[in-house]
Amino acid sequence: MKIETVDFFYLAMPEITTAADGSQDALVVRVTAGGFIGWGECEAAPLPSIAAFVCPMSHGACQPVQNAVLGQRLESPADIARIAAQVEYDSMDLLQAPHTWSGIEMALWDLLGKARGEPVWKLLGYGRSHAKTPYASQLFGDSPQETLERGRSARADGFRAVKFGWGPVGRGALEIDADHFAAAREGLGPDGILLVDVGQIFGEDVERAARRLPALEAARATWLEEPFAASAYGEYATLAARTSVKMAGGEGAHNFHMARNLIDYGNIGFVQIDCGRIGGIGPAKRVADHAVGKGVTYVNHTFTSNLALSASLQPFAGVADATICEYPVSLQPLAVELTANHIQRDANGEIAAPDAPGLGIEINPAALETYRVEVEITVQGRTLFRSPAAA
Amino acid sequence: MKIETVDFFYLAMPEITTAADGSQDALVVRVTAGGFIGWGECEAAPLPSIAAFVCPMSHGACQPVQNAVLGQRLESPADIARIAAQVEYDSMDLLQAPHTWSGIEMALWDLLGKARGEPVWKLLGYGRSHAKTPYASQLFGDSPQETLERGRSARADGFRAVKFGWGPVGRGALEIDADHFAAAREGLGPDGILLVDVGQIFGEDVERAARRLPALEAARATWLEEPFAASAYGEYATLAARTSVKMAGGEGAHNFHMARNLIDYGNIGFVQIDCGRIGGIGPAKRVADHAVGKGVTYVNHTFTSNLALSASLQPFAGVADATICEYPVSLQPLAVELTANHIQRDANGEIAAPDAPGLGIEINPAALETYRVEVEITVQGRTLFRSPAAA
Repeated sequence: MKIETVDFFYLAMPEITTAADGSQDALVVRVTAGGFIGWGECEAAPLPSIAAFVCPMSHGACQPVQNAVLGQRLESPADIARIAAQVEYDSMDLLQAPHTWSGIEMALWDLLGKARGEPVWKLLGYGRSHAKTPYASQLFGDSPQETLERGRSARADGFRAVKFGWGPVGRGALEIDADHFAAAREGLGPDGILLVDVGQIFGEDVERAARRLPALEAARATWLEEPFAASAYGEYATLAARTSVKMAGGEGAHNFHMARNLIDYGNIGFVQIDCGRIGGIGPAKRVADHAVGKGVTYVNHTFTSNLALSASLQPFAGVADATICEYPVSLQPLAVELTANHIQRDANGEIAAPDAPGLGIEINPAALETYRVEVEITVQGRTLFRSPAAA
Repeated sequence: MKIETVDFFYLAMPEITTAADGSQDALVVRVTAGGFIGWGECEAAPLPSIAAFVCPMSHGACQPVQNAVLGQRLESPADIARIAAQVEYDSMDLLQAPHTWSGIEMALWDLLGKARGEPVWKLLGYGRSHAKTPYASQLFGDSPQETLERGRSARADGFRAVKFGWGPVGRGALEIDADHFAAAREGLGPDGILLVDVGQIFGEDVERAARRLPALEAARATWLEEPFAASAYGEYATLAARTSVKMAGGEGAHNFHMARNLIDYGNIGFVQIDCGRIGGIGPAKRVADHAVGKGVTYVNHTFTSNLALSASLQPFAGVADATICEYPVSLQPLAVELTANHIQRDANGEIAAPDAPGLGIEINPAALETYRVEVEITVQGRTLFRSPAAA
């Protein structure tokens, strides 16, 4: 097979807010090769990501992503790795390139899996897809009371693990944060797994983060996610040494090395990888392997559709010891409707990467129309991109 | 003053080749505030960088760069740092944002310097701008003979230091590379400073890089630049421990932490910062301070116009011990013509960051017309960007 076409579908809700909700828009990728179709999703700003695919070349190490992709041979996982290496080298100076490539890479795995009749996790070398405990991923409430109710609601919905993120935490008085942590624990109940995500709010201020540790410890949080900027490894390591709460991070990694560095130098306990940013499923699998060797627990980072969720489950589907996974529970209609099927919890309340070929997720073409964003990019009078038709 | 307008000028040579020559196109930024004009240059793919400025918001942590910039107060360096922090936070998930912001940040310093009648290096707290030995930055020849001639030619042109980069090195037999290194040394003469840049050609393959060490040592190379991927710190440190040749790197850093990490974990001897990528002059100055504390030598990375050169000299203008600087000598006409004045070598063959207010570089409006690339980006029928007029 040769890669024949790569199409980008930019979708968006009619109104986008400043909430830290990544499901308000989407950049979906469709790849065709040898009569098969593969789908992927970039967890990325759509317009710059499209531009990174089609832009004119700046020089040999700053080429558009399409140059290393279109027309390439695709017969095996090794081909995907080869194309990935080419993109990394030829688009070295194009910063957005890894985000663009991530959705394409996913689509190549999906396509290859469909062509072979095998799920992606099998192509990655795993013998089975282990069921995992999904944690309901949601935002803190505006008030501790609202946080409490969200915790109760998630518990009532059968979730044994809940992540609260962003919202007011880290922005005001210490006591407010402590109230939110306690409310989250109370809502979730004494035996639930409580995870806290503060979305880099402390920048590189270790002391400001450290003042929250007693309240996090009292609430028995399993992890504190992204206290600092993604590459502030020293700060992660310093904070980790001061508490029993594990540090979590990694969603900002846009290549394997960045995630490896966070493990090796940041002393994190959980590494969270978004396949829509790190360059797809291949580098994520490398991170999973490295994490196992270092005694760090791999977790997916997913705040978009079930297509992205399936992709993000594949790299650690076969790691039996990595028992929890992120599961977004308040997706915008766009992200729900994008896929015709969904990854549902089983009787045990667990989810797993699908057994169907490829990523095992079917795209709903109607959603590509309903939420379609019309884009046209012209350079020197030549149209480099125009939103494609779904059919 | 308030930031009133931010305009992007995408310029390109009529023909772009795959040579590793970053001066074949340019993304120039013009900022106006309080009746003053500041200029900057992104060392970045123009189209994706423009898209990152104007794109629709994806969510609160994936906002277009313009949201944190337009209308902001600009009275002091602290204002620039404040806006930088806002861009970093609000555009956290927009990967291209730091490259877009870099050119704007430079322009803000230029503007502030002009408003105060002071050079940027003075605003950074330096008492004077120390002259530095420029190294002629050029590519390896296609053959060792051509490399030899380029070394001789640079020497004849009065350069005591020369950097050879990219070309065939690392792509073929070990002996070919050794011949190039020896030819470079011969062309440069026995007392010249020889610098070698291999542009990440070894990826993460330490052994393949290590096989070149004897030839580099024999040629008495001062540094080996970017043997590996930008974030492969462990590989840098491993190679550094095996040779007297210092490692150099840092141009891939798109924030302060990445450069700090390369120093702290990569065991490099020289840190090379491109102000057009790292987020501008402010974070570059932080790197310079950190480097001094760690006994690492700061060097600018510049392969574009003299506007970018001036910006990249500012962060270490006052560091007397950092005595060499990159000086591109085979710029494309676009990059030469872009500026009305140029940073010339003095009677000692040295250059320095200008004493004139701001960056001390005047833009030639004719070049903005001559090399202008027409871009139009429309989303949902609304024009988000159209190439502005120069006047």
